[in-house]
Amino acid sequence: MENNKLIEKYKDITVVNGKDSINILESNNPIFVCVIAYTETSEISGITVAGANKDLIKYTPSADAEFLYYGRCKCIDDVPATPDGKPTPALITKTMLDISNIPFIVVDSGVKVKPDIPLFSFNLRPGKNILKDIAMKSEEVEKAYRYGLILGKQLSKNNDFVILGESIPGGTTTALGVMLSLGIDAENKMSSSMPQNPHTLKNMIVRKSMKKNNITFGSLKDKPFDAISLIGDPMIPSVTGIAQGVIDNGGRVMLAGGTQMCTILSILKRLNVKTDKVFIGTTKYIFNDHSADFTNLVLSIDNNVSIFVSDLHLIESTKLGLKAFANGFVKEGVGAGGVSIATMINANGKLNGKTLLKYIENEYEKNIEKNYVKRN
Amino acid sequence: MENNKLIEKYKDITVVNGKDSINILESNNPIFVCVIAYTETSEISGITVAGANKDLIKYTPSADAEFLYYGRCKCIDDVPATPDGKPTPALITKTMLDISNIPFIVVDSGVKVKPDIPLFSFNLRPGKNILKDIAMKSEEVEKAYRYGLILGKQLSKNNDFVILGESIPGGTTTALGVMLSLGIDAENKMSSSMPQNPHTLKNMIVRKSMKKNNITFGSLKDKPFDAISLIGDPMIPSVTGIAQGVIDNGGRVMLAGGTQMCTILSILKRLNVKTDKVFIGTTKYIFNDHSADFTNLVLSIDNNVSIFVSDLHLIESTKLGLKAFANGFVKEGVGAGGVSIATMINANGKLNGKTLLKYIENEYEKNIEKNYVKRN
Repeated sequence: MENNKLIEKYKDITVVNGKDSINILESNNPIFVCVIAYTETSEISGITVAGANKDLIKYTPSADAEFLYYGRCKCIDDVPATPDGKPTPALITKTMLDISNIPFIVVDSGVKVKPDIPLFSFNLRPGKNILKDIAMKSEEVEKAYRYGLILGKQLSKNNDFVILGESIPGGTTTALGVMLSLGIDAENKMSSSMPQNPHTLKNMIVRKSMKKNNITFGSLKDKPFDAISLIGDPMIPSVTGIAQGVIDNGGRVMLAGGTQMCTILSILKRLNVKTDKVFIGTTKYIFNDHSADFTNLVLSIDNNVSIFVSDLHLIESTKLGLKAFANGFVKEGVGAGGVSIATMINANGKLNGKTLLKYIENEYEKNIEKNYVKRN
Repeated sequence: MENNKLIEKYKDITVVNGKDSINILESNNPIFVCVIAYTETSEISGITVAGANKDLIKYTPSADAEFLYYGRCKCIDDVPATPDGKPTPALITKTMLDISNIPFIVVDSGVKVKPDIPLFSFNLRPGKNILKDIAMKSEEVEKAYRYGLILGKQLSKNNDFVILGESIPGGTTTALGVMLSLGIDAENKMSSSMPQNPHTLKNMIVRKSMKKNNITFGSLKDKPFDAISLIGDPMIPSVTGIAQGVIDNGGRVMLAGGTQMCTILSILKRLNVKTDKVFIGTTKYIFNDHSADFTNLVLSIDNNVSIFVSDLHLIESTKLGLKAFANGFVKEGVGAGGVSIATMINANGKLNGKTLLKYIENEYEKNIEKNYVKRN
């Protein structure tokens, strides 16, 4: 009964698996942390839709971060959308943060181009292309994790619910590499920012990199930091550290994202961190992605974790660029799913997915369409 | 009566001037923000006690920041104390933060050596020596202030009381320069980290720099940003921006420090920022400094602002290095006064200055004396 009431109240949030009901996410002082990073793996052709072309990929995470603050990009004089108008998911996140007044910070865990915003710096280098080099030195992995622990601890003192999102182009490939190294059968289960999910390409890159590094499936299951160092990216240890820092201090964490956040969950498990206060928050478009297998991937890592899924009704949008999210493009990122869930909960059910869609469309008109038309 | 009760409860906090009683500082979610920065002005001989010698000065702010997290310095293999054992005021701040569990962040607004901690970066260059160059470009002043506003706004969403401290060697000289440019008669009123307050040297430097920049007393009273650019340092616009960001969003601010914080107050006034939620928090050793004139300096800037003064009974310490604070050395810094006030209030009066002294002495034994003995 209790649960039915909640379902009615939050009709655009679905809980999948797990023992938790939606009200476990209620908080008087949530905070959103967006970790931006870079891996040169993203420069391999065909791997990401983020960034209109190869030269622009390096601006993507910083442009996303600037968009959250300003509704526009400053590091690059361009609209944060594909040439045919599919926007960055930061558009959704920004809209939600404006409505909910949830505070947020951006953590730089190794971007190539610094955004024009104040940010929490982990003083890390961008990750290398895992086909050519090891992803990052083990000292850098250790530092990212250690800084994450420190930040997570501080954050959790006045914020009892920390929502963690990311922006790292090419990140699903490195995430796949780490999971396979840890013995999690994630192959062909990872989502992509494109509807034609380039599984073959991703598998090929990861297999080649594993071979180069003498890794076989599960051979690093007790050495998650080695896996990150050889085949991961700087976002992974940073988010892991922040999450653990919060949990160790008694707080709750939402891993807001798609299959990349599965990697974080799998490392937390390997580190024996208690995950009863860890939740996954994502969009319907990841959850329903037939080219991937999100739910089973999560459950194969932790069959007790609750997945919260947000429905923003983008399929009903009059904006083709937004409707595209429901048709397999972009789908998620920059914590869009998790932050929209927190926004509905923050509004105590007074804002549902349909109402939020109107706000998102307004933001799209103001900050994408107008500039897009201006440019063309 | 009410007020007498408070005075009894918080017997080691004194309110000077202003209409506020101590309970205005009560908060369920305070946060401490330590802004570290650098000015090459500190390299002029005789200007600061911070750093055992000239080559070490550049490590001071970062060593302070590391001390807050680790109880030791990492960027430099040395004890954060003068050769005869006078510790950094960060020792007091760290002790208080540990006891109170008040969260804190460090903002890098332009240090020369990066500390080994995660920090909020404003991506600024260290300030120049005001005898030789302008202190910082006007774009940098604008950026520091703008980033401060952004950070202050975000902080104030979940923290209704923001305590602002600083660590910038040589900062009282640049602070003096800015105040004179704004028409505030601060000459011979600024505190120093040394008992033989080098007023003559500071005045000489500032006068020379003013002449070089064609500034006369008060000639920049309507151009505070020009004053900072010509004769200030990067800490000043950063702290000003954070303070204003908090206030604009309805929060309360404590400027925790000595005469440098007067400069912040004077700029806030020049920017027409309402200061009824701005408080000064400092130590008894600044307040009683006969070589300076703290109270009158504050009142000449804003005669309504309340000054809260913390008594940590350092005069009674068995540790000569700590006792020295009461005899004119160091006196304050890294927000020590303000954070100790917040700690007493957080403990609802259950911790007074004498109790806190015991904790400070323990910290001194553990992190200064032991290492100091080890080294010698």
